Amino acid sequence: MGESSAQGIILLMYNPPEDHLDRLRSIAPGYEFRVATSENEAIRLMPEAEIVLGNRYFTQSLPFARQLKWMQSNSVGVDLILAQKDLLSQKGIVLTCARGVYDNEMALHALGLVLSLFRSLHLLRDEQLRHSWQRHRLRDFEGSRCLILGWGSLAQKIAGYLTAFGGRVSAVRNQSHDSEDGEIKIFGRNSWEEQLPLTDLLVLCLPKTAGTMRLVGRPQLEKLPATAFVVNIGRGGTLDDDALADLVRNRFIAGAALDVFEQEPLPSAHPIWTIPEIIVSPHVARSLEGPNFKWFALFENNLARYIGGQPLLHQVDYARGY
Amino acid sequence: MGESSAQGIILLMYNPPEDHLDRLRSIAPGYEFRVATSENEAIRLMPEAEIVLGNRYFTQSLPFARQLKWMQSNSVGVDLILAQKDLLSQKGIVLTCARGVYDNEMALHALGLVLSLFRSLHLLRDEQLRHSWQRHRLRDFEGSRCLILGWGSLAQKIAGYLTAFGGRVSAVRNQSHDSEDGEIKIFGRNSWEEQLPLTDLLVLCLPKTAGTMRLVGRPQLEKLPATAFVVNIGRGGTLDDDALADLVRNRFIAGAALDVFEQEPLPSAHPIWTIPEIIVSPHVARSLEGPNFKWFALFENNLARYIGGQPLLHQVDYARGY
Repeated sequence: MGESSAQGIILLMYNPPEDHLDRLRSIAPGYEFRVATSENEAIRLMPEAEIVLGNRYFTQSLPFARQLKWMQSNSVGVDLILAQKDLLSQKGIVLTCARGVYDNEMALHALGLVLSLFRSLHLLRDEQLRHSWQRHRLRDFEGSRCLILGWGSLAQKIAGYLTAFGGRVSAVRNQSHDSEDGEIKIFGRNSWEEQLPLTDLLVLCLPKTAGTMRLVGRPQLEKLPATAFVVNIGRGGTLDDDALADLVRNRFIAGAALDVFEQEPLPSAHPIWTIPEIIVSPHVARSLEGPNFKWFALFENNLARYIGGQPLLHQVDYARGY
Repeated sequence: MGESSAQGIILLMYNPPEDHLDRLRSIAPGYEFRVATSENEAIRLMPEAEIVLGNRYFTQSLPFARQLKWMQSNSVGVDLILAQKDLLSQKGIVLTCARGVYDNEMALHALGLVLSLFRSLHLLRDEQLRHSWQRHRLRDFEGSRCLILGWGSLAQKIAGYLTAFGGRVSAVRNQSHDSEDGEIKIFGRNSWEEQLPLTDLLVLCLPKTAGTMRLVGRPQLEKLPATAFVVNIGRGGTLDDDALADLVRNRFIAGAALDVFEQEPLPSAHPIWTIPEIIVSPHVARSLEGPNFKWFALFENNLARYIGGQPLLHQVDYARGY
């Protein structure tokens, strides 16, 4: 691309701080940079854009794209954008996501939730509010059988920590046969459910696709032992929240920690709020940021690759859906 | 010792499950085993005991010891027993502690507390009780400057995890000069306080001795930046709880998580209960156990060493106090 794309337009759907914009300009000196700060502006500027950086008004303005070649999302999960998958592939637009950018933060948040469950920190907090000093028999994590659904970069990072903590970790990937990744056993779609009765900790770390919708529903949850904990750090909708709530309330599952939900914000009347053994984390495993964002470095890196004609990082596969 | 000690008496100050007692008997076949289930019984049986296993009634019955050679404590911190240090050393009694037995459990509990502080899990729990969905700007742990007070086996284990999480860890040991242990910088008693203004996370992992009493008092706490977190996983009394409470309440310190306190149980009227930014963990980093205890294996191992004339594990140095 390079020189031939001179006068191309790069449309930013976020407010770039000066130094970040300077770096983008110096990476792509032949381009003109525009910033859309409203949906109307995005729709007006979209027809001329060759590149879009950032999600903010993208789904609303995509139908107006005429020369768009590449869209860089600032999300890890692109399920909302892929509602227009046909339009994207028909227009020949490459979509890249922010995969990996939040792995460290999200993995540590997930570990905080896991350790809270095993050490009852949420229930101790409830006791603190009553000034109740009550020593407990808490659970060791060491030796726990952990099953991670999904085997992307975040899942692998979490697996590394849980293994270091003394957990016995295996994972599940969308594949026909079982395999291994180093020391980790990876179950495929035909065998993973057999692992559920042998699971102390189930961690959902899945993208939201047609194939993962309610992958963990009541039939799967009912296979877990009554001592099991469930953590969802991936996407809401991959887990049946109501079935989970029902099973935890009735003590068929020991507890859960959810960072993502089928309905967000979680409706105020939803029973999950009031079940003490469930921890509600309001979609903050990746926490709020700004004016600087962790994805700036990826955007700059990928723009340099685009200009240099190199393959872009974290390109979304429209067939797989992530 | 071996055969010459035949007819010696081993006094257990806990209820041994059958299989554990069987193992002890087979390790020391020449000995008679007795179990004290009350203070009176301990006092009555103590004069003839050569070995005492377990703390339960030890401090009350120690003055009645006549042939005691070795006491194996089931505690890691032996400060309560060392109140009778002079009596112990005058009678020539060797004291061994349960050092290391709880390292895994306590390290993971400490990590749970650290991650709760950085990810505000305690404050999110308070919001959950109000059904309040509020997304937040939470703190990354990566890059945090961690200072660990104490450099025993537990401190080293915690340091390993915090380093793996991306923390920049250094530690403090009771020594005159600074040194290094692998990648970890170890500050001595003359320089450690200079590190406090550069500390994001201060972890107390200290034994309770004359030298560590209120080692972290108001003057030290005041040197921390307002963004710092404090965790006490060691022994109550090494930290000035009231000064900490005052500084957190007035936002000179960001928050704290305490598993040990100067007064235990923490009195119901103590202000610490009501400061949202402080997490009260009621001395459960080592949680309640029974009828099986994690120290059974150490007791059996050390008894075999005693019988075989080998050095005992985890002998307490009366001069150092741990």
